Amino acid sequence: MGDYRDLWQSLDMDLEKHDQLCAVLPEFYGDIYLSQENRPEGMNYFNFVISEIHGLRVQELAEHRKQGGKVLGSFCVFVPDEMIVAADAIGVGLCGGSDFWIPDGERVLPRNMCPLIKASVGAKLSGTCPYFQSVDLLVGETTCDGKKKAWEILEGYVPMHVMDLPQMKRKKDYLHWMDELWLFKEKIEKLTGNEITEEKLAKGIQRINQKRAVLQRLYNTRKAENLPISGKDVLLITQIAFYDDPERFTAKVAELCEELEDRIAKGIGVFKEGTPRILVTGTPMAIPNWKLHHMIETSGGAVVCEETCTGTRYFENLVKEEGNTLEEQIRGLADRYLGINCACFTPNKGRIDDIIRLYKEYRADGVVYYSLPFCHTYALEYKKVKEALDQAGIPVIMVESDYSLQDAGQIKTRLEAFFEMLEISKAKKEVAATE
Amino acid sequence: MGDYRDLWQSLDMDLEKHDQLCAVLPEFYGDIYLSQENRPEGMNYFNFVISEIHGLRVQELAEHRKQGGKVLGSFCVFVPDEMIVAADAIGVGLCGGSDFWIPDGERVLPRNMCPLIKASVGAKLSGTCPYFQSVDLLVGETTCDGKKKAWEILEGYVPMHVMDLPQMKRKKDYLHWMDELWLFKEKIEKLTGNEITEEKLAKGIQRINQKRAVLQRLYNTRKAENLPISGKDVLLITQIAFYDDPERFTAKVAELCEELEDRIAKGIGVFKEGTPRILVTGTPMAIPNWKLHHMIETSGGAVVCEETCTGTRYFENLVKEEGNTLEEQIRGLADRYLGINCACFTPNKGRIDDIIRLYKEYRADGVVYYSLPFCHTYALEYKKVKEALDQAGIPVIMVESDYSLQDAGQIKTRLEAFFEMLEISKAKKEVAATE
Repeated sequence: MGDYRDLWQSLDMDLEKHDQLCAVLPEFYGDIYLSQENRPEGMNYFNFVISEIHGLRVQELAEHRKQGGKVLGSFCVFVPDEMIVAADAIGVGLCGGSDFWIPDGERVLPRNMCPLIKASVGAKLSGTCPYFQSVDLLVGETTCDGKKKAWEILEGYVPMHVMDLPQMKRKKDYLHWMDELWLFKEKIEKLTGNEITEEKLAKGIQRINQKRAVLQRLYNTRKAENLPISGKDVLLITQIAFYDDPERFTAKVAELCEELEDRIAKGIGVFKEGTPRILVTGTPMAIPNWKLHHMIETSGGAVVCEETCTGTRYFENLVKEEGNTLEEQIRGLADRYLGINCACFTPNKGRIDDIIRLYKEYRADGVVYYSLPFCHTYALEYKKVKEALDQAGIPVIMVESDYSLQDAGQIKTRLEAFFEMLEISKAKKEVAATE
Repeated sequence: MGDYRDLWQSLDMDLEKHDQLCAVLPEFYGDIYLSQENRPEGMNYFNFVISEIHGLRVQELAEHRKQGGKVLGSFCVFVPDEMIVAADAIGVGLCGGSDFWIPDGERVLPRNMCPLIKASVGAKLSGTCPYFQSVDLLVGETTCDGKKKAWEILEGYVPMHVMDLPQMKRKKDYLHWMDELWLFKEKIEKLTGNEITEEKLAKGIQRINQKRAVLQRLYNTRKAENLPISGKDVLLITQIAFYDDPERFTAKVAELCEELEDRIAKGIGVFKEGTPRILVTGTPMAIPNWKLHHMIETSGGAVVCEETCTGTRYFENLVKEEGNTLEEQIRGLADRYLGINCACFTPNKGRIDDIIRLYKEYRADGVVYYSLPFCHTYALEYKKVKEALDQAGIPVIMVESDYSLQDAGQIKTRLEAFFEMLEISKAKKEVAATE
């Protein structure tokens, strides 16, 4: 990473504490990522992004702001990036994925709280996250009790706008959400001084659609029998999607996809034949929360898909591009966003359908249901998902885990047993098929 | 209690398990309640209600149903009793307050979940709650993540209707809530076959207003210097308000109030002079969760008010009785219900105002902030409440506790220290005032 101390200083960061944070990441990343064999060349860009995690992009934000542009921070896939882009603003995802920030979060939050929320708030309070320091407005939402009430605390530190996501998906709830989108439009227009016209929103929709489409293309390569890329690598890419420049990101993922498609044509894979294919479903994983994927892929499994907010929920479904008026465009946005099956909705049968569909599409052998501790919505939804998967004959295991590494040994043991079971039942099926 | 085995059998209860539950309560109640000295005569009715807790009232429900009447169960002060009464139905609160039901709740819910939700669901699953067995419809709401998702599980056992409570209090949220009230009206009309006319709704509003008003009268007696009744006893009465016959209940509380007002006139109190007066604020306490009040009142304190759902949130604010059309009445109901300052709302500044107001009205010396474990909304809101109370010079202590008695010793020690501190600062103030 270059020398960004002046930049960080200008962002009013705690440089000493930040040094501690920066000291840990390279080795951590090296152990998890650079140790992989036969990685695609196209991952070099993403290695570079991580090596510059608090540098280059932060500088871009600073330059954007110097020219009068605004930066909006968010914590959720429901905040419409299309509108942010349409107002010539930059959106960055701010979810905290590091244990480093937990103690600072616990200064103002209960300990019995999901680590993602504690780390996000702690990142701000510790003054060690340059993205947090670069935002002109935080955009929260009412997706869960923890976040909803955490905004009230964060509001004491940064200007905040909260979007009220409905909890159901009836017609009236769509109207309610459309209204929230109009309010959000007004809010960003005021903040940026830029009007969001039909033309600009159309461009914003197009640009973000392209980003989502390229992620779908990337995910499609994971449907191949020989996986051309590890799940760990794809997780990283999806995480980076939340803060990298959309156009550059789209181009770089497209480049990678060509390489991966070429690998598929040549039958090159990164896992040994017969490795159990795992669909991960559950709560989001923010950088640098690579724990579960790393454990899966070093315990004999391969992650083929994530039905999470740092996975399919982020990019599946595009916004209709036919809308010619703002009304139609906003309706298109509402349709797209309320098509996401987050556990915050009641009922949320759509998520079960998604899991079973993705399991088939990605030819998975088993499902790992991941939940951050104290995440009531996902933890509670496990029961219904498990019932449905049992009925469909799909093996599933629940892993509840925070950001610490204390439980790694125990989880690895459980995963290994699960994968062995998957291999046995796979072998049995093959034998049965040949008999 | 009389012999209700045939009744319980007809309700498809687990009689053996129910016997275990019934075996515990009398001694538990005796220790906590009957041991009190100088109790008002008027408490005899409520002793009787508890002695018949799974008897007389359950029989009344059975008779009501035999005549074609319907029974609705709910778990929240936001479910409008006025409408239930207007449809000639009976509403009963079903919140579980006993440790007994937790293991059955944990069969289908995560352990990291508030005991009230676990006990409520466990009460159904165990087949040991005759009220649960008597309901024709459960009415849930979206007040917290835990309950919202628990309804999806309970729905597998009992017919369920969920009211979507808004999470904010803007004008559009009022309209949304009014719409939910109309939907609820439709739902009960269909269930009961009884139309809710203006006349009937006016009567329902009047009847429930009377119940709330008598509770306000009861609470007013706690503003006196000599407390004529213990906090424990008042908590019991408020808990019983959720399931007793509204008219009988109103009459019995009124009788008690006369006795208490007479006590005040005569200067008769149940605590020794100078006992620190405590305002309890936080999460609800369902029968038989008398733990905190019992600990406070056996550690040198006296509870003078509860800013909880089993306290002021249940009865403060009446529905306007001037409404002549259904539209006006529904608007009046929306106004009344959205006047409740539950921690599920964001922001919820009104609750802080309530706490400070009640602290003054009830001449409290200190505040005990009570939170059930894993209740994100109330646990998170503590920070803002504490800041405001600190600023107002109001002493506050946080007690997080579930239904088990394991932490009783530790909490008592903390409470005793808190009360001592209150007494010292009270004495100091008095000295300062006389100097």
